[in-house]
Amino acid sequence: MNKLEHIGIAVKNLDASEQLFKLLLDTEPYKRETVESEGVATSFFLVGNVKIELLAATREDSAIAKFIEKRGEGIHHLAFDVDSAEERMEALRKAGFEWINAAPKDGADNKRIAFLHPKSTNGVLTEICQDKT
Amino acid sequence: MNKLEHIGIAVKNLDASEQLFKLLLDTEPYKRETVESEGVATSFFLVGNVKIELLAATREDSAIAKFIEKRGEGIHHLAFDVDSAEERMEALRKAGFEWINAAPKDGADNKRIAFLHPKSTNGVLTEICQDKT
Repeated sequence: MNKLEHIGIAVKNLDASEQLFKLLLDTEPYKRETVESEGVATSFFLVGNVKIELLAATREDSAIAKFIEKRGEGIHHLAFDVDSAEERMEALRKAGFEWINAAPKDGADNKRIAFLHPKSTNGVLTEICQDKT
Repeated sequence: MNKLEHIGIAVKNLDASEQLFKLLLDTEPYKRETVESEGVATSFFLVGNVKIELLAATREDSAIAKFIEKRGEGIHHLAFDVDSAEERMEALRKAGFEWINAAPKDGADNKRIAFLHPKSTNGVLTEICQDKT
């Protein structure tokens, strides 16, 4: 993994949490983006060179809605930047890790992403992401 | 907050999880440290400029043991580097955030640390840390 690219945080109310993290992190959010395919609305902060991505559900059947129902608000996933999503998926599959996605899919922030199953990563939902450009 | 300094991950077995994260992150752990006052044994990895700190309980009454009993293994906290722990505590207290610690205390990695209560931070256990040197 090249670096930690972002941390995803599941929140109930994007407006309220944006205000809270603005105070907590002492910086302004720099963009919002909705990913319809995932049923999620996001707001991004930058701290040092790591992004903090707030994630709110846009419909009841989204993964974020289910996560909050089960675990409450809080840290949802860690995302690591990679050069090639396919190569990293294959290498980790060979090392015994289990993927939620069979192949990379489109995510927010112009990226191709895939998630490892938290059962194989000590309970840490882990994403790899590759810049599309 | 200057930058994300580390991410703490609660694990049951430090040896086993060290092997797992070595494969996952594709890098070697670079140090171990036990903090007796906290009842915790730690192992550190570096990815980009962010540390991943594995945390295992050394006794049953440690915060990490209680966390795993309640929530299972997984991400425990985010820690942000600050210039002055006292000043940041005071500023966030004025902004309405609730601290677990009344004042900074000694943590791993030669730091003075304090934790915000996750009730006031959208469920994200948040640490601030200041280098002692």
